[in-house]
Amino acid sequence: MPEILSLTPVDAVACCPPMATTPLTEESAAVLAPMLKALGDPARLRLLSLVASHEGGEACVCDLNDAFDLSQPTISHHLKVLHGAGLLTREKRGVWVYYRVDSDALAALGGLIAGAGR
Amino acid sequence: MPEILSLTPVDAVACCPPMATTPLTEESAAVLAPMLKALGDPARLRLLSLVASHEGGEACVCDLNDAFDLSQPTISHHLKVLHGAGLLTREKRGVWVYYRVDSDALAALGGLIAGAGR
Repeated sequence: MPEILSLTPVDAVACCPPMATTPLTEESAAVLAPMLKALGDPARLRLLSLVASHEGGEACVCDLNDAFDLSQPTISHHLKVLHGAGLLTREKRGVWVYYRVDSDALAALGGLIAGAGR
Repeated sequence: MPEILSLTPVDAVACCPPMATTPLTEESAAVLAPMLKALGDPARLRLLSLVASHEGGEACVCDLNDAFDLSQPTISHHLKVLHGAGLLTREKRGVWVYYRVDSDALAALGGLIAGAGR
Protein backbone atom coordinates (compact mmCIF):
# COMPACT_ATOMS: atom_id res chain seq x y z
CA MET A 1 0.00 0.00 0.00
CA PRO A 2 1.42 3.43 -0.88
CA GLU A 3 2.59 5.18 2.27
CA ILE A 4 0.33 8.19 1.72
CA LEU A 5 -2.80 6.02 2.01
CA SER A 6 -1.85 5.09 5.54
CA LEU A 7 -1.58 8.75 6.56
CA THR A 8 -4.38 10.80 8.01
CA PRO A 9 -5.85 13.39 5.58
CA VAL A 10 -3.96 16.20 7.34
CA ASP A 11 -0.65 14.40 6.98
CA ALA A 12 -1.45 13.61 3.39
CA VAL A 13 -2.11 17.27 2.60
CA ALA A 14 0.86 18.50 4.59
CA CYS A 15 3.12 16.03 2.82
CA CYS A 16 2.79 17.64 -0.56
CA PRO A 17 5.03 20.29 -2.10
CA PRO A 18 3.28 23.32 -3.64
CA MET A 19 1.35 22.35 -6.77
CA ALA A 20 2.87 25.30 -8.64
CA THR A 21 6.34 23.76 -8.38
CA THR A 22 5.74 20.00 -8.42
CA PRO A 23 2.84 18.05 -9.97
CA LEU A 24 0.76 16.07 -7.48
CA THR A 25 1.46 12.37 -7.43
CA GLU A 26 -1.31 9.92 -8.25
CA GLU A 27 -1.32 8.83 -4.60
CA SER A 28 -1.67 12.38 -3.25
CA ALA A 29 -4.43 13.22 -5.72
CA ALA A 30 -6.30 10.07 -4.67
CA VAL A 31 -6.27 11.23 -1.05
CA LEU A 32 -7.03 14.91 -1.69
CA ALA A 33 -9.78 14.58 -4.31
CA PRO A 34 -12.34 13.01 -1.92
CA MET A 35 -11.86 15.93 0.51
CA LEU A 36 -12.60 18.41 -2.28
CA LYS A 37 -15.46 16.30 -3.59
CA ALA A 38 -17.01 16.35 -0.11
CA LEU A 39 -16.87 20.16 -0.23
CA GLY A 40 -18.23 20.28 -3.77
CA ASP A 41 -21.85 20.21 -2.68
CA PRO A 42 -23.71 23.43 -1.78
CA ALA A 43 -25.48 21.91 1.24
CA ARG A 44 -22.26 20.45 2.67
CA LEU A 45 -20.38 23.69 2.08
CA ARG A 46 -23.05 25.63 3.96
CA LEU A 47 -23.10 23.01 6.74
CA LEU A 48 -19.34 23.28 7.15
CA SER A 49 -19.57 27.07 7.36
CA LEU A 50 -22.42 26.79 9.87
CA VAL A 51 -20.36 24.47 12.09
CA ALA A 52 -17.30 26.73 11.69
CA SER A 53 -19.20 29.86 12.66
CA HIS A 54 -21.40 28.30 15.37
CA GLU A 55 -20.96 29.39 18.96
CA GLY A 56 -17.95 27.67 20.46
CA GLY A 57 -16.90 26.38 17.02
CA GLU A 58 -19.00 23.24 17.32
CA ALA A 59 -22.52 22.17 16.43
CA CYS A 60 -24.77 19.14 16.49
CA VAL A 61 -27.58 18.26 14.10
CA CYS A 62 -29.92 19.76 16.69
CA ASP A 63 -28.24 23.16 16.17
CA LEU A 64 -28.41 23.03 12.40
CA ASN A 65 -31.97 21.87 11.79
CA ASP A 66 -33.49 25.35 11.64
CA ALA A 67 -30.98 26.71 9.15
CA PHE A 68 -31.92 24.32 6.35
CA ASP A 69 -34.84 23.11 4.39
CA LEU A 70 -33.39 19.61 4.80
CA SER A 71 -34.45 16.75 7.02
CA GLN A 72 -32.42 15.82 10.11
CA PRO A 73 -31.33 12.49 8.56
CA THR A 74 -30.14 14.31 5.43
CA ILE A 75 -28.15 16.81 7.52
CA SER A 76 -26.70 13.89 9.52
CA HIS A 77 -25.70 12.19 6.29
CA HIS A 78 -23.88 15.29 4.99
CA LEU A 79 -22.09 15.76 8.34
CA LYS A 80 -20.95 12.13 8.18
CA VAL A 81 -19.58 12.66 4.67
CA LEU A 82 -17.63 15.73 5.85
CA HIS A 83 -16.36 13.74 8.85
CA GLY A 84 -15.45 10.79 6.66
CA ALA A 85 -13.45 13.12 4.43
CA GLY A 86 -11.46 14.35 7.43
CA LEU A 87 -12.90 17.88 7.38
CA LEU A 88 -14.93 17.65 10.59
CA THR A 89 -14.06 16.01 13.88
CA ARG A 90 -16.84 14.54 16.04
CA GLU A 91 -17.48 13.84 19.68
CA LYS A 92 -20.50 12.10 21.21
CA ARG A 93 -21.92 13.75 24.32
CA GLY A 94 -25.19 12.47 25.70
CA VAL A 95 -27.59 11.72 22.87
CA TRP A 96 -25.97 14.09 20.36
CA VAL A 97 -22.84 14.00 18.26
CA TYR A 98 -21.05 17.36 18.16
CA TYR A 99 -19.03 18.36 15.11
CA ARG A 100 -16.12 20.75 14.84
CA VAL A 101 -14.13 21.76 11.76
CA ASP A 102 -10.70 20.16 11.56
CA SER A 103 -8.72 23.42 11.40
CA ASP A 104 -5.45 21.74 10.49
CA ALA A 105 -6.97 19.84 7.57
CA LEU A 106 -8.77 22.91 6.22
CA ALA A 107 -5.69 25.11 6.61
CA ALA A 108 -3.52 22.56 4.80
CA LEU A 109 -6.07 21.93 2.04
CA GLY A 110 -6.71 25.66 1.55
CA GLY A 111 -2.98 26.33 1.44
CA LEU A 112 -2.48 23.64 -1.16
CA ILE A 113 -5.18 25.13 -3.43
CA ALA A 114 -3.99 28.70 -2.97
CA GLY A 115 -0.44 27.51 -3.62
CA ALA A 116 -1.37 26.15 -7.04
CA GLY A 117 -1.81 29.72 -8.20
CA ARG A 118 1.57 30.99 -7.04
CA MET B 1 -31.24 36.89 -10.38
CA PRO B 2 -29.15 37.07 -7.18
CA GLU B 3 -26.23 39.45 -7.69
CA ILE B 4 -23.61 36.80 -6.88
CA LEU B 5 -24.65 34.70 -9.88
CA SER B 6 -23.74 37.53 -12.23
CA LEU B 7 -20.23 37.76 -10.77
CA THR B 8 -17.23 35.92 -12.09
CA PRO B 9 -16.08 33.05 -9.86
CA VAL B 10 -13.20 35.16 -8.50
CA ASP B 11 -15.54 37.97 -7.50
CA ALA B 12 -17.91 35.45 -6.00
CA VAL B 13 -15.16 33.96 -3.83
CA ALA B 14 -13.70 37.32 -2.91
CA CYS B 15 -17.13 38.58 -1.93
CA CYS B 16 -17.52 36.26 1.00
CA PRO B 17 -16.59 36.90 4.61
CA PRO B 18 -14.55 34.18 6.37
CA MET B 19 -16.61 31.04 6.90
CA ALA B 20 -15.43 30.86 10.50
CA THR B 21 -17.30 34.07 11.33
CA THR B 22 -20.31 34.09 9.00
CA PRO B 23 -22.16 31.15 7.44
CA LEU B 24 -22.08 31.06 3.64
CA THR B 25 -25.26 32.20 1.97
CA GLU B 26 -27.15 29.80 -0.27
CA GLU B 27 -26.13 31.93 -3.29
CA SER B 28 -22.42 31.87 -2.42
CA ALA B 29 -22.46 28.13 -1.80
CA ALA B 30 -24.14 27.60 -5.18
CA VAL B 31 -21.28 29.44 -6.90
CA LEU B 32 -18.42 27.93 -4.87
CA ALA B 33 -19.52 24.27 -4.78
CA PRO B 34 -19.04 23.69 -8.55
CA MET B 35 -15.46 24.99 -8.31
CA LEU B 36 -14.72 22.50 -5.52
CA LYS B 37 -16.57 19.71 -7.31
CA ALA B 38 -14.39 20.33 -10.37
CA LEU B 39 -11.33 19.83 -8.14
CA GLY B 40 -12.83 16.77 -6.47
CA ASP B 41 -11.57 14.37 -9.11
CA PRO B 42 -8.06 12.87 -8.95
CA ALA B 43 -7.37 13.27 -12.67
CA ARG B 44 -8.47 16.91 -12.72
CA LEU B 45 -6.49 17.68 -9.59
CA ARG B 46 -3.36 16.23 -11.17
CA LEU B 47 -4.05 18.07 -14.43
CA LEU B 48 -4.38 21.37 -12.58
CA SER B 49 -1.08 20.74 -10.78
CA LEU B 50 0.59 19.79 -14.08
CA VAL B 51 -0.58 23.03 -15.71
CA ALA B 52 0.47 25.03 -12.63
CA SER B 53 3.95 23.52 -12.55
CA HIS B 54 4.51 23.40 -16.32
CA GLU B 55 7.21 25.56 -17.86
CA GLY B 56 5.97 29.12 -18.21
CA GLY B 57 2.90 28.30 -16.10
CA GLU B 58 0.86 27.17 -19.10
CA ALA B 59 0.21 23.93 -20.94
CA CYS B 60 -1.82 22.54 -23.81
CA VAL B 61 -3.22 19.02 -24.19
CA CYS B 62 -0.14 18.28 -26.31
CA ASP B 63 2.06 18.92 -23.25
CA LEU B 64 0.00 16.74 -20.93
CA ASN B 65 -0.56 13.62 -23.03
CA ASP B 66 2.55 11.81 -21.85
CA ALA B 67 1.87 12.32 -18.16
CA PHE B 68 -1.38 10.37 -18.10
CA ASP B 69 -2.83 7.06 -19.01
CA LEU B 70 -5.80 9.00 -20.41
CA SER B 71 -6.79 9.74 -23.98
CA GLN B 72 -6.35 13.22 -25.44
CA PRO B 73 -10.16 13.77 -25.67
CA THR B 74 -10.52 12.78 -22.00
CA ILE B 75 -7.76 15.20 -20.97
CA SER B 76 -9.41 17.92 -23.10
CA HIS B 77 -12.72 17.23 -21.38
CA HIS B 78 -11.19 17.57 -17.89
CA LEU B 79 -9.43 20.80 -18.89
CA LYS B 80 -12.74 22.19 -20.16
CA VAL B 81 -14.42 21.34 -16.85
CA LEU B 82 -11.64 23.16 -14.94
CA HIS B 83 -11.97 26.12 -17.30
CA GLY B 84 -15.75 26.12 -17.00
CA ALA B 85 -15.40 26.21 -13.22
CA GLY B 86 -13.22 29.31 -13.46
CA LEU B 87 -10.02 27.58 -12.28
CA LEU B 88 -8.11 27.70 -15.57
CA THR B 89 -7.92 30.44 -18.18
CA ARG B 90 -7.45 29.51 -21.84
CA GLU B 91 -5.99 31.06 -24.97
CA LYS B 92 -6.02 29.63 -28.49
CA ARG B 93 -2.74 29.92 -30.38
CA GLY B 94 -2.41 28.14 -33.70
CA VAL B 95 -4.04 24.73 -33.49
CA TRP B 96 -3.71 24.38 -29.72
CA VAL B 97 -5.52 25.83 -26.74
CA TYR B 98 -3.17 26.78 -23.91
CA TYR B 99 -4.32 26.65 -20.32
CA ARG B 100 -3.08 28.59 -17.30
CA VAL B 101 -4.26 28.40 -13.69
CA ASP B 102 -6.39 31.35 -12.62
CA SER B 103 -4.18 32.42 -9.72
CA ASP B 104 -6.70 34.88 -8.30
CA ALA B 105 -9.50 32.30 -8.23
CA LEU B 106 -7.30 29.63 -6.62
CA ALA B 107 -5.90 32.08 -4.06
CA ALA B 108 -9.38 33.25 -3.13
CA LEU B 109 -10.84 29.71 -2.99
CA GLY B 110 -7.89 28.41 -0.98
CA GLY B 111 -8.13 31.33 1.41
CA LEU B 112 -11.83 30.71 1.92
CA ILE B 113 -11.25 27.03 2.80
CA ALA B 114 -8.29 27.75 5.05
CA GLY B 115 -10.32 30.53 6.69
CA ALA B 116 -13.06 28.09 7.72
CA GLY B 117 -10.65 26.60 10.21
CA ARG B 118 -9.63 29.83 11.88
